[in-house]
Amino acid sequence: MRNLKMTIAFDGSKYKGWQKQKDNDLTIQGKIEAVLSKMTGEDIQVVGCGRTDSGVHAENYIANFHTKSTFSTSRMLDYLYEYLPEDIGVKSIDDVAERFHARYNVKSKTYVYRVNTHKFRDVFNRKYTYHIAEKLNLVEMKKASEVLVGSHDFKSFTNLRNSDKSTIRTINYINIIEKKDLLEIEVNGNGFLWNMVRIIVGTLIEVGKGNLKPVDVETILNEKKRWEAGPLAQAKGLFLRDVQY
Amino acid sequence: MRNLKMTIAFDGSKYKGWQKQKDNDLTIQGKIEAVLSKMTGEDIQVVGCGRTDSGVHAENYIANFHTKSTFSTSRMLDYLYEYLPEDIGVKSIDDVAERFHARYNVKSKTYVYRVNTHKFRDVFNRKYTYHIAEKLNLVEMKKASEVLVGSHDFKSFTNLRNSDKSTIRTINYINIIEKKDLLEIEVNGNGFLWNMVRIIVGTLIEVGKGNLKPVDVETILNEKKRWEAGPLAQAKGLFLRDVQY
Repeated sequence: MRNLKMTIAFDGSKYKGWQKQKDNDLTIQGKIEAVLSKMTGEDIQVVGCGRTDSGVHAENYIANFHTKSTFSTSRMLDYLYEYLPEDIGVKSIDDVAERFHARYNVKSKTYVYRVNTHKFRDVFNRKYTYHIAEKLNLVEMKKASEVLVGSHDFKSFTNLRNSDKSTIRTINYINIIEKKDLLEIEVNGNGFLWNMVRIIVGTLIEVGKGNLKPVDVETILNEKKRWEAGPLAQAKGLFLRDVQY
Repeated sequence: MRNLKMTIAFDGSKYKGWQKQKDNDLTIQGKIEAVLSKMTGEDIQVVGCGRTDSGVHAENYIANFHTKSTFSTSRMLDYLYEYLPEDIGVKSIDDVAERFHARYNVKSKTYVYRVNTHKFRDVFNRKYTYHIAEKLNLVEMKKASEVLVGSHDFKSFTNLRNSDKSTIRTINYINIIEKKDLLEIEVNGNGFLWNMVRIIVGTLIEVGKGNLKPVDVETILNEKKRWEAGPLAQAKGLFLRDVQY
């Protein structure tokens, strides 16, 4: 059996996230498995690097699958390009060692969240940015982001309920960059709880607006209660940028 | 009567161009006139700087309209922002002299055409670029573009038929810039015939592919026959960038 690793870009606007759910649901995994199964004549199961929320995008999502097919990777790439919808693009496909597993082997992931702070919407980026229409205080946001870097119990930053699993995660860095009216918040960590990046961003935006102080973010972390943190930032501003193995 | 000048950005993907046609047609002019008429209680007629083809976009389209309304321009802007669809954005609105006419007073216009030359589509720019999937010869394209700069009879570069009107126009410059896999062709001229920019781009792309030589473009110009020129490049890659008065 061959083990193949794919790098995938997708515009998540119309999808219910990566992970296949009910048969009729529109998911990225579902679309890719259908094309690969048609191509190989096998019942292909694709392993993704993790779930993504409905409406979230990816610049470089990583997945792998096993197949007996003898097609060259270049032919596979052409086939996928031809049969996948326009909003999903497989950027590369490579034979990898049998032991490679797109989810288990993840060391860390990088997400980027984009905010349009201009008074008016950007008609061309409207599906890829969260529009806030006010200038945010970057100095305060950066201070608050430093509170979150490191290993912490992120229970306040997830919508996951009554789980027995650990909610401790490590954030390696948060970069906040402003280019004209476009604010980019880049978050890298060893793993993320459900909705965690979007709640972190929602909280940092509250700090940027002056509704919370950086010191409040420390309190929120310590309280370990979801309602203490900021609101869930819109899905459409979030991109999975890269996955490190 | 006040005379108001608007700068408008629009994603033309789902519109039949700027100009209002039949009442049921989806046009940018139609959408804006409906909102302005609702706002003022008058039957507002908007004068645009020119037609745009179905599917063509604009970064800074210019239009003007007359009204007796006493609303401040800032209130108008907020109203337009609230009631226009997400793919149309009025960026600014200003009181101007009574004599200003968005079409008659145009001195020149700048268009930009975007081509994705990467092997695969860009899922995030798929609605704003023409995907060619091969490297184009920029040196040859630049030589060919120089043939077109200046005052010429552009009869070979329009789909306008049996018109008695002059087909002489002046192109002030054509800039061809490449950023990674994104090719931008910027064309500035004193006026453009129907489909002219898209046929110029279609012809330059043929030169870039090696199907035509720069010297052939001179022949095409001189022949004054549409079928001599290259194909019509897709609408979705074209943006009206700026209008000079």
